[in-house]
Amino acid sequence: MKMDYRFSDKVLALKPNAIREILKSASDPGVISLSAGNPAPDAFPTDAIREISERLLRENPIGVLQYGVSEGYQPLRDTLKSYLKEKHNIGSDDDELIIVSGAQQVMDIAAKTFLNEHDVLVCEAPSFVGALNTFRSYNTELIGVTVEPDGMNMEELEKVLDENPNAKLIYTIPNFQNPSGVTMSLEKRKKLYELALAHNCLIIEDNPYGDLRYYGEDVPAIKSFDTEGIVIYSGSFSKVVSPGIRAGYMMANKAAMAKMIICKQGQDVHTTMWSQMLCNELMTKYDFEKHLDYLRALYTKKAALCMDLLDKYVVPHGIHYNKIEGGLFIWCDLPEDVDMLDFCKKLTERKVCVVPGNAFLTDSAMECHSFRINFSTPTDEQLTQGIIEIGKLAEEIIG
Amino acid sequence: MKMDYRFSDKVLALKPNAIREILKSASDPGVISLSAGNPAPDAFPTDAIREISERLLRENPIGVLQYGVSEGYQPLRDTLKSYLKEKHNIGSDDDELIIVSGAQQVMDIAAKTFLNEHDVLVCEAPSFVGALNTFRSYNTELIGVTVEPDGMNMEELEKVLDENPNAKLIYTIPNFQNPSGVTMSLEKRKKLYELALAHNCLIIEDNPYGDLRYYGEDVPAIKSFDTEGIVIYSGSFSKVVSPGIRAGYMMANKAAMAKMIICKQGQDVHTTMWSQMLCNELMTKYDFEKHLDYLRALYTKKAALCMDLLDKYVVPHGIHYNKIEGGLFIWCDLPEDVDMLDFCKKLTERKVCVVPGNAFLTDSAMECHSFRINFSTPTDEQLTQGIIEIGKLAEEIIG
Repeated sequence: MKMDYRFSDKVLALKPNAIREILKSASDPGVISLSAGNPAPDAFPTDAIREISERLLRENPIGVLQYGVSEGYQPLRDTLKSYLKEKHNIGSDDDELIIVSGAQQVMDIAAKTFLNEHDVLVCEAPSFVGALNTFRSYNTELIGVTVEPDGMNMEELEKVLDENPNAKLIYTIPNFQNPSGVTMSLEKRKKLYELALAHNCLIIEDNPYGDLRYYGEDVPAIKSFDTEGIVIYSGSFSKVVSPGIRAGYMMANKAAMAKMIICKQGQDVHTTMWSQMLCNELMTKYDFEKHLDYLRALYTKKAALCMDLLDKYVVPHGIHYNKIEGGLFIWCDLPEDVDMLDFCKKLTERKVCVVPGNAFLTDSAMECHSFRINFSTPTDEQLTQGIIEIGKLAEEIIG
Repeated sequence: MKMDYRFSDKVLALKPNAIREILKSASDPGVISLSAGNPAPDAFPTDAIREISERLLRENPIGVLQYGVSEGYQPLRDTLKSYLKEKHNIGSDDDELIIVSGAQQVMDIAAKTFLNEHDVLVCEAPSFVGALNTFRSYNTELIGVTVEPDGMNMEELEKVLDENPNAKLIYTIPNFQNPSGVTMSLEKRKKLYELALAHNCLIIEDNPYGDLRYYGEDVPAIKSFDTEGIVIYSGSFSKVVSPGIRAGYMMANKAAMAKMIICKQGQDVHTTMWSQMLCNELMTKYDFEKHLDYLRALYTKKAALCMDLLDKYVVPHGIHYNKIEGGLFIWCDLPEDVDMLDFCKKLTERKVCVVPGNAFLTDSAMECHSFRINFSTPTDEQLTQGIIEIGKLAEEIIG
């Protein structure tokens, strides 16, 4: 290589997504991976998708194959608007909804539209590494706010906003947060909204797991009390239909959305038509609620198994975790005198993969004593074996 | 609306893609649209796609529906690497190829990876407005270099590069350029490469129409003599399979690609699996060359009809155009004393839509006497009626 590439300042420090790199090494068939975030193989509505796809390509092949508009397939946009209004009381005449190529694109578009280099984005600590990496790719300064069992610490958030007038976006996953599993209380959601408004700051409400509640009652979305147009709501089909189809949606105030649509157009013109039409058919001609019930039943069983196993094999040896009410992840805390990275490395040597918690921090060099486990991807047998192995290692190291 | 949005500097001046806006108004069923760039409805390999899709969803539904890796579906990457090597002599051990969600994403990723705000990107004048808008969305300074019948004016290019040390990218569509229809000569391709290398500048070689040559001989790709890793090659399935599936690919030196993969990951994690697997099946289990022959036959007929009609009805009234050897567009020049925008407006009043040429310039306020017509989307009847109408208006206005 003779070329000396002149990279942009934005990407100079970028590194590959640590989790996706871990996943690559966890793909060895002998390894039990509790490190992914994939839906269970039996979570896909395969028969319905096969049937719909066959019909779409027979009845409307040109619609599937020709260019579409950047805002998305109009029938799906209409379906989602009604769905969000009825189910979550989200959306007003001031809002617009567009289809995106997975929720990851919402993060990219929002960052691009609102952040100059070195502007501040406030996120939960820990938070979803995929989103953080997207924000990093715009040379954004990330500031994490501690996640408590009922969501972000609001005093800390207020302090961060007071001290950083160039904080323009707050990124939150209020339901069954990835990786902590935490759901933000209604009180904190209201406080978060109030603080954002007072600081002229927008909120990205990322809700990929909202439909996957196994216990307890739904908490209203922050977007549902967004009278001032400061919430960018992000939804996804990845966890409830399929991630391979790359389909999600975003809702935001029309004035904000006008710029974001142009950014969406610049990235990929529009989202794959097949994926969009598929989702619309699933939501309108099939019993989508029944499918969600099926998913919840499937994952409730897996979540319960996971927590039972943790209670039995892992908690007695000094590892703490918070019970979850939904989602796909459980966050485990080691005692503070245990070297977490060393613990995860030893687990890998025993062919069990988890994600070291520091991957989810704004600075992976920060002290961290936690790791994330996922229960949706492994089989029940793998989950059992994996957690027993975690327990054994904990016994050896902690006692 | 009470919120005063603090947009990033990047997007402040962004406006919607003029052509896509024109297309919206051209969608009135009474209007003859010569303004699109869509494949002809009978260009899609619909039967094969139906067959492949049905088989994929039967034999490997989890592969279609589960997450994939950001670099793309490995079998398709391998297929494309062989294809590009055999067909275009493109690709070395220093290069990497990844799958993207349509070629538009190549432009976005390359701009993000290499351009700081106010850096210069050199493009052809005129050039593809979709790409220009993507570059604009990073607050890039665009400088256009005049397109001659054999490609960019090289003296002008050299001057621009000499005067702009922060010119980092040169964007070119060397084959059947959109919108001018021009193919760059081999001599100019070599000169372009030499100038880029001497100025530490990268080249984006955008080749969506390369397989659609109707007359004459193929000219070697710039990437085929890229010994120094300065060419980012962009290919697309939009014109040869389907634009609705959003699938394309890019090839670049591994060191440059490492950063671009991270940007791709941040945008949409990966490209729709269905689209990727479909393209691979089409290229490996079907006679893809035969399909390309079919497309070329289809479009050769349409291109010939279009040029015959122009020769008969339009050229005699003072409008000039250059014969094309491939692609989907013809560029028409009005005499310099005719108001082009007024001409296009009057055409629209007569229910014929073309794209005003200034839409393709780096600054749409520049003087321009040309307009673009497309012959792939309209039926032969629409094409005939539309061009007769252009001729009538030319006779009235020019004489």
